[in-house]
Formats: sequence, C-alpha cells, structure tokens
Amino acid sequence: MSPNRPGRPRDERVDAAILQATRVLLAEAGYAGLTVAAVAARAGIGKAAIYRRYATKQEMVFAATMHGAQVPQPPDTGSLRADLRWLAATITGMIGAPGVGGVLGGLLADMEDEAVATAMRGFAALERATIALILDRATARGELPAAPDPAFVHAVMMGAIFARLHVFGEGDREGFADDLASTVAGGLIHPAGGLPRQGDGTATPG
Amino acid sequence: MSPNRPGRPRDERVDAAILQATRVLLAEAGYAGLTVAAVAARAGIGKAAIYRRYATKQEMVFAATMHGAQVPQPPDTGSLRADLRWLAATITGMIGAPGVGGVLGGLLADMEDEAVATAMRGFAALERATIALILDRATARGELPAAPDPAFVHAVMMGAIFARLHVFGEGDREGFADDLASTVAGGLIHPAGGLPRQGDGTATPG
Repeated sequence: MSPNRPGRPRDERVDAAILQATRVLLAEAGYAGLTVAAVAARAGIGKAAIYRRYATKQEMVFAATMHGAQVPQPPDTGSLRADLRWLAATITGMIGAPGVGGVLGGLLADMEDEAVATAMRGFAALERATIALILDRATARGELPAAPDPAFVHAVMMGAIFARLHVFGEGDREGFADDLASTVAGGLIHPAGGLPRQGDGTATPG
Repeated sequence: MSPNRPGRPRDERVDAAILQATRVLLAEAGYAGLTVAAVAARAGIGKAAIYRRYATKQEMVFAATMHGAQVPQPPDTGSLRADLRWLAATITGMIGAPGVGGVLGGLLADMEDEAVATAMRGFAALERATIALILDRATARGELPAAPDPAFVHAVMMGAIFARLHVFGEGDREGFADDLASTVAGGLIHPAGGLPRQGDGTATPG
C-alpha cells in the first residue's frame, strides 16, 4: 500500500485478489493446470483485468510466487559478507516455499516463448539492481577494487540457492546461506589465480 | 564402449538407440510431448527394453541429455582454480546445448514425483563424487585447510552455470566460467568474515 504505487485503492484490491487467486490455484492444480480464465473466475473479475496487468500467465505466476515490481532493498550492514548474507536470506525466503521448485520448473520450460523470456528478464533486472547497490557499496567501502558485474553475482547467488533448495535437496538452509555469503564475498575480495577481472581490465593476484 | 561396462555388445547398441531416439524426439516434440512408447517405436524396440534400463521417462531423458552412469573424471591440473575451471567447462558442455533449459525445467516440474526425485539424486551423487575428488586434491596440496562439503560446491557450480545459461541469458560463456572458477576457488581458500567452516569446526579469518 505504498503511496508511490500507481493505481487507485480499488485497483489495489483487484491486484491483491489476482495474486491470491493465483496462489490458491497453484496449490490446488499446480503450474501446468493453471489458466488465466480460472484465476479470473476465482478472483471474481474479468480476464481483461488480468491482461491489463500481466501480458502472460507466466508473468502473473512469477508476480504471485516470487515478486512483482517492488523488490526488498538491502540494508547497509557494513560489510560485503553480511550484505550477501542478507541477500541469501532474502532469496531463500522468496523461492523457498514448498512447490516453488515446480512453478519455476514450469516457467523455465516455457522460456522458449519469447514473451515469457522477456518478462523473466524484466524481473531479473529488478533483482540485479539490488545486487548492484550491494556491490557499489562494497567498492565505496574499499572492500573491492572495482564493482564486479552484478549479472555475475546474480547468477551465482540465485542459481546456487535454487539448486540447493529445489534440485539437490535443501538440507541446512541457514548453514548454506552462511557458506554461500562467505565464499562469494571471499572470492570477490580475493579471486584465485591472476585472471583479468571485469570492470578494471587489470589482473588480480590469487 | 568401456570394457568395464556391464552388458553384451548387442545391448550396447540398444542403449545407444534409445538415447539417440530420445534426443531426436526431444528436438522434434519437446520434453512435455515425449513418451516412452514413442521412443521405443523410434528406436525399433519394445517398451520393456527401455524399462529394464530406466525406471521413468525422466531418468531416460536425463541420461540422453546430460549423462548416464559414467561422468567425466577431472584431470589434476595442479591448482584448485584450474580444476574448477575444468569443472565449469565440463558442466557448460553438459547442460549448454540449446533446448536443455526446457528439458531441465520439465524434469524439475516433475520432481514432486518421488521416483523422479530419487533418480535425480542418483545422478547428483555421481557429479558430487567428481567434485569431492577435486576438493580432496586441493586439501592434499595444502590449498585448503580441510575439504569443504562437496554438496555445497556442487550446488554453487551447477546452479550458477544453469542460471546463467538458461534463466538469465548466456552472454560470454568462457568469461563466466573464468570468473566462477576464480571466485569459488578464491572464496574457498579465503572465505570472508570469520564464520565456522564445515569439516574443521574452527573459525577462519576473512
């Protein structure tokens, strides 16, 4: 209910009804069985009200299960490791619910559709802007010589947590998030091996 | 055609025919449209010959697109970074073909089926054994104070490469593999932040 959010209060109630109906039907019927028509019927609105907000079923599902146009903004914890630990916890909270693996699998299987892929890239850009903020702060603090590519850190953090939770079995979520934050922060600060780094064109010692 | 492989040569031709028919039909019809019956018909064999080898359609698809019971064994390159760079290239080769994202998405959407999840865990265990070898070598070399959990490194390497190639857009594969190997090796050698590490129970300085 942010005052900066576009749309009148009446529209916000429709927004919420669509997202809620989508979640209920995903739990009942799964991703493959979900249709825009069924969501509209369950929410008590017309399909056109959904298509004014989401170009595709997949975009609606992503917004209902992961996030919409607002993503959480990182607090400045004072260190890259603690900022990445916050990020790991936030991603785990976002994708960690039971059933989200199947939903993301369904979305992925539909990514060959260009409209779906474009929408997913839009959501990814929002996530990446959050990561860019974390990396820029670490550079300003002097922890990093230059900000690494946010797309690189995005793929590592999202991919690792997704694989752990939904592909290989979740195990100890807190311990995994701790290890991931320590390893990625440590590796960005002290990359092994003398390879050129993105962003500064120089080689870094291992 | 390893002499250690169980089965007579006649059986190996059937093995190969099943895998080839699966790949052809995946390219033609996609994962969702694939059936064991269609693969049997295309390979010119009975369905029973398939079910003697694979408990489910999903297991057959995984073997045809990713790997079967044999996975590539890592050469000892002399450093953790270079061993992980080999691993990144091997994973990229394994999952990087066009269409594999959709296949893996379909498999993931089917993971709520316990038989499918069990088979996927079996394939994951093979991959993890390869990673354990790399980590044990790095420990023997003195690069690491104790071998980290192979399951942790597995989720990070597989997840990051999968996310980059099939979710967020592939970009520069070689550069990504370089950065991933440097960051993960660097972070295992110099984890940030003084958290306890798995395997030795002590804290490491950042």
